[in-house]
Amino acid sequence: MRQMTLIAFLQAQNCTNFASSWRHPQSRTDTWSADYYRHIGRVLEEGKFHLGFFDDRLSMPDMYGRNHEHTVRHGIRCVKLDAVTVLTVMGMATERLGLGATYSTSYYEPFHVARLFATLDLMTDGRAAWNVVTSLNDGEAQNMGRDEAIAHDLRYDRADEFMEVVFGHWDTWEDDAIVQDKANGLFARPEKVHRLDHRGRYFRSRGPFTVPRSPQGHPVIIQAGQSGRGKTFGAQWGEVIFVVYPNIEIARRDYADFKKDVARLGRDPGHVKVAQLINTVSAATKTEAEDKWAVINKLPLEIDALSLLSEALNFDFARKDMDEAFSDAELKEMSGLQAIRDRVVQASGKKNPTVRDFIHFSGRGRVHDPIVGGPKEVADKLEQWFAERACDGFVVSATHVPGAYEDFVRFVVPELQRRGLFRKEYAGKTLRENLGVPIPRVGAWRGTYAMGSV
Amino acid sequence: MRQMTLIAFLQAQNCTNFASSWRHPQSRTDTWSADYYRHIGRVLEEGKFHLGFFDDRLSMPDMYGRNHEHTVRHGIRCVKLDAVTVLTVMGMATERLGLGATYSTSYYEPFHVARLFATLDLMTDGRAAWNVVTSLNDGEAQNMGRDEAIAHDLRYDRADEFMEVVFGHWDTWEDDAIVQDKANGLFARPEKVHRLDHRGRYFRSRGPFTVPRSPQGHPVIIQAGQSGRGKTFGAQWGEVIFVVYPNIEIARRDYADFKKDVARLGRDPGHVKVAQLINTVSAATKTEAEDKWAVINKLPLEIDALSLLSEALNFDFARKDMDEAFSDAELKEMSGLQAIRDRVVQASGKKNPTVRDFIHFSGRGRVHDPIVGGPKEVADKLEQWFAERACDGFVVSATHVPGAYEDFVRFVVPELQRRGLFRKEYAGKTLRENLGVPIPRVGAWRGTYAMGSV
Repeated sequence: MRQMTLIAFLQAQNCTNFASSWRHPQSRTDTWSADYYRHIGRVLEEGKFHLGFFDDRLSMPDMYGRNHEHTVRHGIRCVKLDAVTVLTVMGMATERLGLGATYSTSYYEPFHVARLFATLDLMTDGRAAWNVVTSLNDGEAQNMGRDEAIAHDLRYDRADEFMEVVFGHWDTWEDDAIVQDKANGLFARPEKVHRLDHRGRYFRSRGPFTVPRSPQGHPVIIQAGQSGRGKTFGAQWGEVIFVVYPNIEIARRDYADFKKDVARLGRDPGHVKVAQLINTVSAATKTEAEDKWAVINKLPLEIDALSLLSEALNFDFARKDMDEAFSDAELKEMSGLQAIRDRVVQASGKKNPTVRDFIHFSGRGRVHDPIVGGPKEVADKLEQWFAERACDGFVVSATHVPGAYEDFVRFVVPELQRRGLFRKEYAGKTLRENLGVPIPRVGAWRGTYAMGSV
Repeated sequence: MRQMTLIAFLQAQNCTNFASSWRHPQSRTDTWSADYYRHIGRVLEEGKFHLGFFDDRLSMPDMYGRNHEHTVRHGIRCVKLDAVTVLTVMGMATERLGLGATYSTSYYEPFHVARLFATLDLMTDGRAAWNVVTSLNDGEAQNMGRDEAIAHDLRYDRADEFMEVVFGHWDTWEDDAIVQDKANGLFARPEKVHRLDHRGRYFRSRGPFTVPRSPQGHPVIIQAGQSGRGKTFGAQWGEVIFVVYPNIEIARRDYADFKKDVARLGRDPGHVKVAQLINTVSAATKTEAEDKWAVINKLPLEIDALSLLSEALNFDFARKDMDEAFSDAELKEMSGLQAIRDRVVQASGKKNPTVRDFIHFSGRGRVHDPIVGGPKEVADKLEQWFAERACDGFVVSATHVPGAYEDFVRFVVPELQRRGLFRKEYAGKTLRENLGVPIPRVGAWRGTYAMGSV
């Protein structure tokens, strides 16, 4: 029987995805301690989650009003730690949980990224995953030595070549290269370690690579691009795809379309897991969950949404009044996560939405479309999406930490298991074994890449 | 009483500094597993070491003969993992051991390095240290998107500005910035988080930085430059200095000169620890140690030295016959660790040394000048150097792992403790507390930097 994929959407910052979560009475206040991340890891592993995954951003939000004063005061993601370091901490406190982190193709050399994630994969016995992002935000660019982010389509051209280099390096050590025959002095077979010699349009990297292959071949690739170009990139390279479908009808259609794209590139659609972002507020009963939700729903401030929208769309929302419509030129000027803009235009039914429309329809700064209920209500909703093939699983965001995950593991997971939708034990040791995503054949990506580039 | 500083020189690779160590009968063969690094960390902490420190190299040695065939076959540092990830693993298995890693100023943005090490410092409760290096090797350059390494003096100009940006970011969160008043919604005081706005000759980074200050203010800075420019850099920025003095006479002189340089820059010489690289082969008795040494001394091959010299000096030694002298032009062409070249010239007494001289006097590929003995012999030697102010402590390299550290902790450490040269317990929680190197006053480096730059 087909089994659901469960992923926790984590943040190495002072709040969850929900910027005001730090004000929740039960939120931990030591979000920059190792113990905080160890605790989350153990909760997720108890709940048999496939993967804990960390977002990243290389800057503090300060696009709104071009100043960070509001960010620091209101705690709007003003702390942002190095995600891979935090992830490694979590990995050392767990044994089966998959461990994913975002790393940008815009500000690092592919050799570094290949080595970093290959090392993480070895240190965790094959539990690493890399969420590939192309950075979009001018604040990030200005921290990292540039004036502004790379233009949207160019970012993806670079990202494709970046993947070519990373996958290329990952494929250079054959599985049986290492011998370690001390007596005869043969460490590894020279003919089984290859040099890459990549000289492309954007990147050069010679090799030989310095990390042997891990138990899962190479880390699992996560992708979340939702623009046209982003979806193609995900179909080519992704093994776990994060989506934010607005409703089940659109989800069924887009899910089917995406799987067709994957198949057209010669890949097995069953080996690419599509996971829908969800927010849950769960408890022993529906009434208790509603009481919890009442507490959470009082936390957000309007400034949270304005700040986060300004960041995500690379556009200073302080330039506009609340009920002022954005001009065509302004909408075009938005250079960040264009999928958010497109979703607001679509959901509002307005060609020129207002600031208020952006706050309302983007869901930024608030808990968007939460599933509030006891075990039955939450499981019903998840089952429907899963059974009707609107997705293969869920990326579970948290209203507050660790409470939201503790509740999910206590109330929702057992009900999903009882219904046979979610496994009771980890299937194996590596993330690939647990996801049911096999080790890619060496070089298989080359064919896919060539087809995708046409 | 003045106490000795002890540091372990670690490698996130398939061998120790001693390239043939993997062939030692007692060497572990799982050098790319988390358990291997956890084990080393626990041994060092049992021995109350101040610091475990990882070297780095962003390439596989293949300068010799311009091919990696010999490197892979003979296991000459052909595996090289991401050091910070490995270090984090070690940090999660220990509670007091300091944790240092090399990170290059040549291939990363300072914002990234500042964030990475600040995160590591928080995750380890103030035990992080950063060994600042300027990368010198063409193989590294070619993996990281360039044709060749940056020229020597220019590297240090860039490195100075790099430090200015990193220290600048580290100073932007005041100690008492964070409030976390949930009821009143005040996360942190905006007036206590500053933007850097650095626009220099080589780097730009705007901020605000996203990591709060750690319990030790910022990570401890390690430096190992031995050229004239490298020593100045160390006197300005370093808190732990690695040295390879050729003998105790030169050591006493260079140590005193260096401390004077530190004082001239307005820093307290007592707060900069100079640690001499040593190799020890220790056992319960001198005879047993000599037996151990006989095993170790059989391991090296000539190819180890030729390969490592080619890397370190950025010069293909396969171009020369064994007894052929290097011309002045060739010596000048060597662009890597010029201190090695200078040491060979000095120690051989030849203006134009041969390949054989380089092998002999550089000590590359062999265990250089080992201290072989029982507790008394090894402690005598260390005491002499320490008492005569030839150094403040030692960087202990390993002939094989974990054996060499297990022996040192079992046989040498108790004798040093008995003599009152080495403390019996950690002095505190953070690395700074244990080293006796206080938290730098915010911005203090600015004065030093301006003086050093004159």
